[in-house]
Amino acid sequence: MNNSIEEFNEYRTKMNEVILGKGNKVIGRLFNLDTNTYAAGALDVATKEMLGLVASMVLRCDDCIKYHLGKCHEAGLSTEQVYEIFAVANIVGGTIVIPHTRRAAEFWEELIGEA
Amino acid sequence: MNNSIEEFNEYRTKMNEVILGKGNKVIGRLFNLDTNTYAAGALDVATKEMLGLVASMVLRCDDCIKYHLGKCHEAGLSTEQVYEIFAVANIVGGTIVIPHTRRAAEFWEELIGEA
Amino acid sequence: MNNSIEEFNEYRTKMNEVILGKGNKVIGRLFNLDTNTYAAGALDVATKEMLGLVASMVLRCDDCIKYHLGKCHEAGLSTEQVYEIFAVANIVGGTIVIPHTRRAAEFWEELIGEA
Amino acid sequence: MNNSIEEFNEYRTKMNEVILGKGNKVIGRLFNLDTNTYAAGALDVATKEMLGLVASMVLRCDDCIKYHLGKCHEAGLSTEQVYEIFAVANIVGGTIVIPHTRRAAEFWEELIGEA
Amino acid sequence: MNNSIEEFNEYRTKMNEVILGKGNKVIGRLFNLDTNTYAAGALDVATKEMLGLVASMVLRCDDCIKYHLGKCHEAGLSTEQVYEIFAVANIVGGTIVIPHTRRAAEFWEELIGEA
Amino acid sequence: MNNSIEEFNEYRTKMNEVILGKGNKVIGRLFNLDTNTYAAGALDVATKEMLGLVASMVLRCDDCIKYHLGKCHEAGLSTEQVYEIFAVANIVGGTIVIPHTRRAAEFWEELIGEA
Repeated sequence: MNNSIEEFNEYRTKMNEVILGKGNKVIGRLFNLDTNTYAAGALDVATKEMLGLVASMVLRCDDCIKYHLGKCHEAGLSTEQVYEIFAVANIVGGTIVIPHTRRAAEFWEELIGEA
Repeated sequence: MNNSIEEFNEYRTKMNEVILGKGNKVIGRLFNLDTNTYAAGALDVATKEMLGLVASMVLRCDDCIKYHLGKCHEAGLSTEQVYEIFAVANIVGGTIVIPHTRRAAEFWEELIGEA
Repeated sequence: MNNSIEEFNEYRTKMNEVILGKGNKVIGRLFNLDTNTYAAGALDVATKEMLGLVASMVLRCDDCIKYHLGKCHEAGLSTEQVYEIFAVANIVGGTIVIPHTRRAAEFWEELIGEA
Repeated sequence: MNNSIEEFNEYRTKMNEVILGKGNKVIGRLFNLDTNTYAAGALDVATKEMLGLVASMVLRCDDCIKYHLGKCHEAGLSTEQVYEIFAVANIVGGTIVIPHTRRAAEFWEELIGEA
Repeated sequence: MNNSIEEFNEYRTKMNEVILGKGNKVIGRLFNLDTNTYAAGALDVATKEMLGLVASMVLRCDDCIKYHLGKCHEAGLSTEQVYEIFAVANIVGGTIVIPHTRRAAEFWEELIGEA
Repeated sequence: MNNSIEEFNEYRTKMNEVILGKGNKVIGRLFNLDTNTYAAGALDVATKEMLGLVASMVLRCDDCIKYHLGKCHEAGLSTEQVYEIFAVANIVGGTIVIPHTRRAAEFWEELIGEA
């Protein structure tokens, strides 16, 4: 697997363990709830991950963008579809989203390059 | 048509005319681009409007939320689907999104009540 | 009770019922979790409500500010203490917080005026 | 003077008095500093007020926008110049700024209408 | 002292000197005011630093978080208390705060590890 | 040319090519529009770049800040003028802008050091 994808996942896993290891119940339940949010329901998983991606982009959270890009890739989204999500994010959120789009584009290249 | 939906649309139309009437080209082109962003492409219109809605919710823009709720209604989304979008927005954006969700829920009731 | 406090609470209650009545589980659990977050633990209730207030102020959510001001009042905070929270919010969040501080100050006057 | 301009100024003055009357020194000094920030220096007053306006727009604070629009009007800015500031704000901040631009456009019409 | 704490403090000190060395009075006074904001008053220092921490978290400023974590550590807060602040920040600000919480958790481990 | 300025520009150019190479029309047109926004009109280029800089600062986008600092340098702004823009950004946006001001100050030193 690509190096930067691996690093991202490792740090994420390691620090989630540190956080959850402290036993704060509110945080533990929020983490669970976060997982449930993207489960299939009236909307399918791919649509929910698209929602998570565009929300992360307009809020300009690089790590959240990477996470949802990975999930969008797993859900089988095409590059053309992902760029239409990028387009919505950049129009709604403005050019301030462009630098995050550059990093998102780089991460997406890594995701599709490792297939 | 419901009163508050009508008022919202009227103010929006009236002020867009004032703005576009000043002839600023950048603003004119951005308004056009905004319309194109939600046209069917690799993603269909309903999906794009869902993306616009969730982005508006996490950025906490009541007028943008109303606009995209109207479009989601036109696109035939069900109440259950709309509430799953609300759920993503509230989880990603936090409880700070709740007051906007209240106003969104009120507007949605008006939209489905007038059918 | 003061009119604007009452109106605020009534709208909040009415719309929460509409939202929770739709049966979305993620939203229902987030609402529960929100309540638990401010329960006494390693930090007491007054401290947690102060945290909720300052977070609401820098994120500039008027309804959230009103809600936590009410809770701070119930927890027995003095005007001097509340204004020190206002000061932190205005320094961290900048002058963009001032208009929200005006509305917060107005609501606080109502809260202490009705004692 | 136009009604909504007058109302805006009156509320602003009244609540500033309430806030400053509590004697919190940090808030008092921040209010003073805010005034000094826009005084002529290496940049002239008109330029500084334009900076205040565009910052208020991308941060989407309607009251701050009104305040700086009033100052831009006093500084003699033309409608064409003000709309170029609107353009920068909408491009940088995205379409989420449009509803605030509508209210800004309405307030600007009132300001230039009362000359 | 731990390496990343030291690096953070050194860069902070070095660049504050560059900034203050330019003699801009507004910035100089804001830096002073920032220090005064967290001095003991109607609220004690520990409470004010908790307010600064939660505000920094919901505004998602990693450097501000580190700074206030250091101050919370000096003020004698326990890990359990710090995690209750993390909980408020994540509930109010949403899962978008989680990546910042990971980095905050890492920095806190360093702070308590060096005692 | 200074190393970090060069690196910044190279990454920017490389990733813009990746993004534009995908052929998404909305993104392509937004990139064009972004360029037009800062062209001379009723306001001159220097003023528009100042507006872009202050907007980038209050929205706390480091890459956007660097880009507009470069343009402000090309437009001949003095250090004193740039610091007055920093002052407006820090007052409007609060102390949360300070860490971004540190990185902006560092980049500005590089820009003026290479003349």
